[in-house]
Amino acid sequence: MEATMLYGPRDIRFEDRPDPTITKPSDAILRLSATCICGSDLWPYRGIGNFAEPPTPMGHEYCGIVEEVGKKVRNIKPGQFVVGSFATSDNTCVICRDGYQSSCVQREFMSSAQAPLLRVPLADGTLVPTRDQPSKGLIPSLLATSDVLGTGWFAADAANVKPGRTVVVVGDGAVGLLAVLSARQMGAERIIAMSRHESRQKLAREFGATDIVTERGDEGIARIKDLTNGIGADSVCECVGTQESMMQAIRSTRPGGYVSYVGVPHGVALDGAGLFFAEVHLHGGPAPVRRYLPELMNLVLNEKINPGKVFDLVLPLDQVAEGYRAMDERRAIKTLLRP
Amino acid sequence: MEATMLYGPRDIRFEDRPDPTITKPSDAILRLSATCICGSDLWPYRGIGNFAEPPTPMGHEYCGIVEEVGKKVRNIKPGQFVVGSFATSDNTCVICRDGYQSSCVQREFMSSAQAPLLRVPLADGTLVPTRDQPSKGLIPSLLATSDVLGTGWFAADAANVKPGRTVVVVGDGAVGLLAVLSARQMGAERIIAMSRHESRQKLAREFGATDIVTERGDEGIARIKDLTNGIGADSVCECVGTQESMMQAIRSTRPGGYVSYVGVPHGVALDGAGLFFAEVHLHGGPAPVRRYLPELMNLVLNEKINPGKVFDLVLPLDQVAEGYRAMDERRAIKTLLRP
Repeated sequence: MEATMLYGPRDIRFEDRPDPTITKPSDAILRLSATCICGSDLWPYRGIGNFAEPPTPMGHEYCGIVEEVGKKVRNIKPGQFVVGSFATSDNTCVICRDGYQSSCVQREFMSSAQAPLLRVPLADGTLVPTRDQPSKGLIPSLLATSDVLGTGWFAADAANVKPGRTVVVVGDGAVGLLAVLSARQMGAERIIAMSRHESRQKLAREFGATDIVTERGDEGIARIKDLTNGIGADSVCECVGTQESMMQAIRSTRPGGYVSYVGVPHGVALDGAGLFFAEVHLHGGPAPVRRYLPELMNLVLNEKINPGKVFDLVLPLDQVAEGYRAMDERRAIKTLLRP
Repeated sequence: MEATMLYGPRDIRFEDRPDPTITKPSDAILRLSATCICGSDLWPYRGIGNFAEPPTPMGHEYCGIVEEVGKKVRNIKPGQFVVGSFATSDNTCVICRDGYQSSCVQREFMSSAQAPLLRVPLADGTLVPTRDQPSKGLIPSLLATSDVLGTGWFAADAANVKPGRTVVVVGDGAVGLLAVLSARQMGAERIIAMSRHESRQKLAREFGATDIVTERGDEGIARIKDLTNGIGADSVCECVGTQESMMQAIRSTRPGGYVSYVGVPHGVALDGAGLFFAEVHLHGGPAPVRRYLPELMNLVLNEKINPGKVFDLVLPLDQVAEGYRAMDERRAIKTLLRP
């Protein structure tokens, strides 16, 4: 097959690679219906952070048809349409049972999904099948449940969004936009999206944002305070991962409120005393997508939500390099790739 | 009156000061039955941190008899025995109503309670009276509810301690010891106290600790993992406030678990990516003692708990300087002062 490899900063190549095979009896091989590029892929694409020796296989969001399963796989069968999380999980350990499958004791992070074929370890615990083959029109939204929606949903859940609450979403990338959608589904009364880009503001409003704040830094915090009786929001979702966005989130939250953070922080250091006197709840990490998959897939299959709208660029998989460029230059929110 | 003033590092003086008077119609003046020295008083005593120009009045834990109230005070009457929090609160703002009275919009931190007389702002919202005059033997435990017990209780509550859970307490000062007591009251199954001091280990066991870990750093974390099937504890209470103790706490917690921190962090910086992959819940700040006071005072008055045991040194107030020395040199866990 041909698959996506990162050779160095902004050097994406689509090239011959061996087809994946069953290497453990708990594996499955999928033929992907769709895959995509994640905001987090842009960090290594831009040469930021410590990553493995190049070339590195890329991609961790996926859905498709099961081709083959290992001998120990019980719940997943060839021919099924499945979605899986970007993190594998046995779904049976004490951490999984508590709903933190993304920190499963057997976890592996998926990393070669921008390809036509994919090996998924721990198939029984990682993959969720649909009852029937979904219609083609639902594929983008089902693909979204694999990471970007699950991560936005976790952002809202970890920020304790509940009916009647005021929620701020910091970051207007695909995860931030889907945190808005998630907060709406969870019954938030007021959803303030922080965004300076008109097309993203429009999608935020479509997903349920009631207010848009374009200011950042101290001015942004002052605007949030204006909108919340001088106190700050009940729940704030940090969906960027920089020092600036993290401080924006913490300082926009009322004492006793909740801050979530769902993007891998890059160069973020939190001052202990500052956090202490902010008196917020802080929770984040790799989103436990597997916890939410059955519920989110049902919402999509029943057409209650349409998270696939975040894909504003669709390309054939062999044009993956252009997909990265479009996101890097913010010409696209998120690129869907068709194998 | 004579009261306690800090002139500089390790320079505590007990000297003439004007008697406090009602300055706002919401004030009350108390004649203290007992006061004490807090672990947090040792930071300025040791010259650490940024504090006001010396001399600084000291003390923020108190209980006693109401002498006089301002014109607007409705619920508190002269002659009543009362306990108040180290942070004043109106107990009516939206933050107070949510249980975060220590971050009340009108909050002031108390700071001159190591004295025979004390002015308490926002008396109606800050003070809780008993129905009858308590017996003398209960005074130390009632005094403890004013801060040290309330703070230990918050540590356990913010770490989500529940029946059946495994709890680690980092720090064997008075707050840590009372976090052990609190976790026991909340039904924790296993309570692991990290302590290297025999007398403190003894009190920890008396308060309900089931295990003692004497190791620190990586060895301490390894011991906690040994005791928790390699996974880490459900709930960890950080009761020190240093970088080492904070990392000890975070790294001893299982993914999805809860870390609380209740001492003002000094020189603590948390790495965003480390926190992200730990995937813990983090909550802390100045303990909302006022939220807990009615319940904790009842537990004391009904002799269900005896938190006053943390006072292992009792001195007349005019020997306050010796009280500081004994705590600084770790000869005493906590010093009670009798005006």
